[in-house]
Amino acid sequence: MPKKKTVARKLGTAAGAEVLRAIHASAQDIHKKIMARKKPTMKFPVRSLTNVRYQPDRGFFEMAGRRKERALTVNTVKTFAQTLRMIALSKELVENDDIATKREAYYVSKNWEEARFNEQPESDTVMDDVEAFFSVNREQLGFIPEEKGGDVAGRLIVVDHDRDTGKTLRIDCTKFGSGAYSIPITVEHLQFETKADFILVIETAGMFQRLVKHNYWKGANCILVSMGGVPTRACRRFIRRLADIQKIPVYVFVDGDPYGISNIYRTLKVGSGNAAHLNEFFCVPQARFLGITPQDIIDYKLPTHPLKDVDVKRARDAIKHDPFIRHHKEWVKGMEQLLERGVRAEQQALAKHGLNYVIDTYLPEKLKHTERFLP
Amino acid sequence: MPKKKTVARKLGTAAGAEVLRAIHASAQDIHKKIMARKKPTMKFPVRSLTNVRYQPDRGFFEMAGRRKERALTVNTVKTFAQTLRMIALSKELVENDDIATKREAYYVSKNWEEARFNEQPESDTVMDDVEAFFSVNREQLGFIPEEKGGDVAGRLIVVDHDRDTGKTLRIDCTKFGSGAYSIPITVEHLQFETKADFILVIETAGMFQRLVKHNYWKGANCILVSMGGVPTRACRRFIRRLADIQKIPVYVFVDGDPYGISNIYRTLKVGSGNAAHLNEFFCVPQARFLGITPQDIIDYKLPTHPLKDVDVKRARDAIKHDPFIRHHKEWVKGMEQLLERGVRAEQQALAKHGLNYVIDTYLPEKLKHTERFLP
Repeated sequence: MPKKKTVARKLGTAAGAEVLRAIHASAQDIHKKIMARKKPTMKFPVRSLTNVRYQPDRGFFEMAGRRKERALTVNTVKTFAQTLRMIALSKELVENDDIATKREAYYVSKNWEEARFNEQPESDTVMDDVEAFFSVNREQLGFIPEEKGGDVAGRLIVVDHDRDTGKTLRIDCTKFGSGAYSIPITVEHLQFETKADFILVIETAGMFQRLVKHNYWKGANCILVSMGGVPTRACRRFIRRLADIQKIPVYVFVDGDPYGISNIYRTLKVGSGNAAHLNEFFCVPQARFLGITPQDIIDYKLPTHPLKDVDVKRARDAIKHDPFIRHHKEWVKGMEQLLERGVRAEQQALAKHGLNYVIDTYLPEKLKHTERFLP
Repeated sequence: MPKKKTVARKLGTAAGAEVLRAIHASAQDIHKKIMARKKPTMKFPVRSLTNVRYQPDRGFFEMAGRRKERALTVNTVKTFAQTLRMIALSKELVENDDIATKREAYYVSKNWEEARFNEQPESDTVMDDVEAFFSVNREQLGFIPEEKGGDVAGRLIVVDHDRDTGKTLRIDCTKFGSGAYSIPITVEHLQFETKADFILVIETAGMFQRLVKHNYWKGANCILVSMGGVPTRACRRFIRRLADIQKIPVYVFVDGDPYGISNIYRTLKVGSGNAAHLNEFFCVPQARFLGITPQDIIDYKLPTHPLKDVDVKRARDAIKHDPFIRHHKEWVKGMEQLLERGVRAEQQALAKHGLNYVIDTYLPEKLKHTERFLP
């Protein structure tokens, strides 16, 4: 690894340099306390739903500010040591432009002797603490999720670089034919060039493939992103950075059911409840809901399925407990409409009117009135 | 749709023309019988494990040849009509170079009046019958799976075309930086250019990302394919066509556990038991097992996890019932070794020796002795 350090450092991003400065500062702080024969301490935000706040103008669930302190004592010495070693691993990763999954970090710890983790959930918790401690996302610390997801096609050039040569790579997403550009696990280093009018984010791989197959993005002048279900961190972060940097709107096209609305769309837009320390980075506040809306089911005479028990429970929970749904009367009304009629409709139900009705009729009609999109 | 017919036809593949001929022939056969006032019939292969045979030289589970006949009677009239309409839909798809997911086909049937399907499982069954009837894979009939999966990076150019202009698109998988080429749902029309020495097929997205991040494919002169768990049909078919056409070996790198061996690797190599009428197209008989082997766990002193009950059951079932495992004594021995030691190891466990030990040491050592790879 050391031999690659020079090239990696040259390629290091400004974000990387900032993380390194923060790591140095916290290390010096702890070192100073120890040299002064004081007990070193670290303060972490409390990561729990009880410490979460929703401000619509901010657009995502955020930490309410409570912190817990971890002081070095006989009882905490192992966790304290593990936290420091995890921070040291992060420093090494950032310096070497390298990455480690949660699982890899766990295995690396097997060489930390007394500080080794016995089970991966322990190392995951320490990693979450470190992430919250520095208030940056895990990817900036060099830690990456296991899962990958998100495909892109259409009017976008992704700018990346070759790690060995440093050469710029311009990846043209109009040139993938029936295939697509697969979003990498970390996206912080990517830049974008586009003249697209909007980003269309799609729930199912099948619908994405239809729009790609028919070059839908050409006529509509847009970028297509496939989430393949609940979007991964990388996929959410990719859409967010793209939409922020290029200042283009994000329209979301998912199934017309409680899952599509309160799990997939809500997670994409404002983040999730149990990872509020991350939502700032992994939400897309500018996202708006194109369809399938509860009203679309009626207007487009879509074939429906009855709501399952789990759908009913999900819709009722959202109306009662989800700060995002509760804040937007339109969504409360939409959920109630689904519950009253007792039905749901999938985005592919549009095929009833012909396989390409979605391309020829539904999407153009909806896009004529973006002001009507649900919040 | 009709307006696009001309271009689509021009782009139509030889495989498409063959399917159309087969559809015409079967339709004429039925038409002739009706005009002769005889009861039309159709013969389908029996799709069940009792009608499966494993010949190692053929390399995959195949249908043993038993067929069931569906004659037009009062009882079968609806299914018979649905089968004909499904075939007609396939004809329309192939003629228009279009696609439909199973779900879309179900929704299209909502306009078939009395022949409409009430539940998707009914239409899925008829589609499976049609697929087996013509002995081609569903993709060639224009029917595509819902799910998508499989990323590619490294020394490969995928040749596709732009649907509207017919222009050839050469997709260079060395030029995606930290990203990758995402395999489309249908791959029959793709061509390949490569001078790679082998294809390395990887179980986890995390390991794939590591190898991509470090441009592993450059030094090793290979193509990297990420399966992301059990490979989808598209991913298996892609590897198969690539390996067949370019005549390059396929090495598989998965977790060293019963799931990685008997589910992921076995499915990739010989197919699955409950879809034997498809295995001919969706298996990769030339695949060989690089690791993690049960012996690697010992040789590389890997950190392990204890086998779970489900692992033990899976290993025992494989030894007793899986024709592939049973045929290869090395695999029976390997499974027994896992059971005796009661442990499993993940591919990311190599990180114990350093994050890039897999790149610097493990893979080069293994690739020096490809003749030792398990069958």
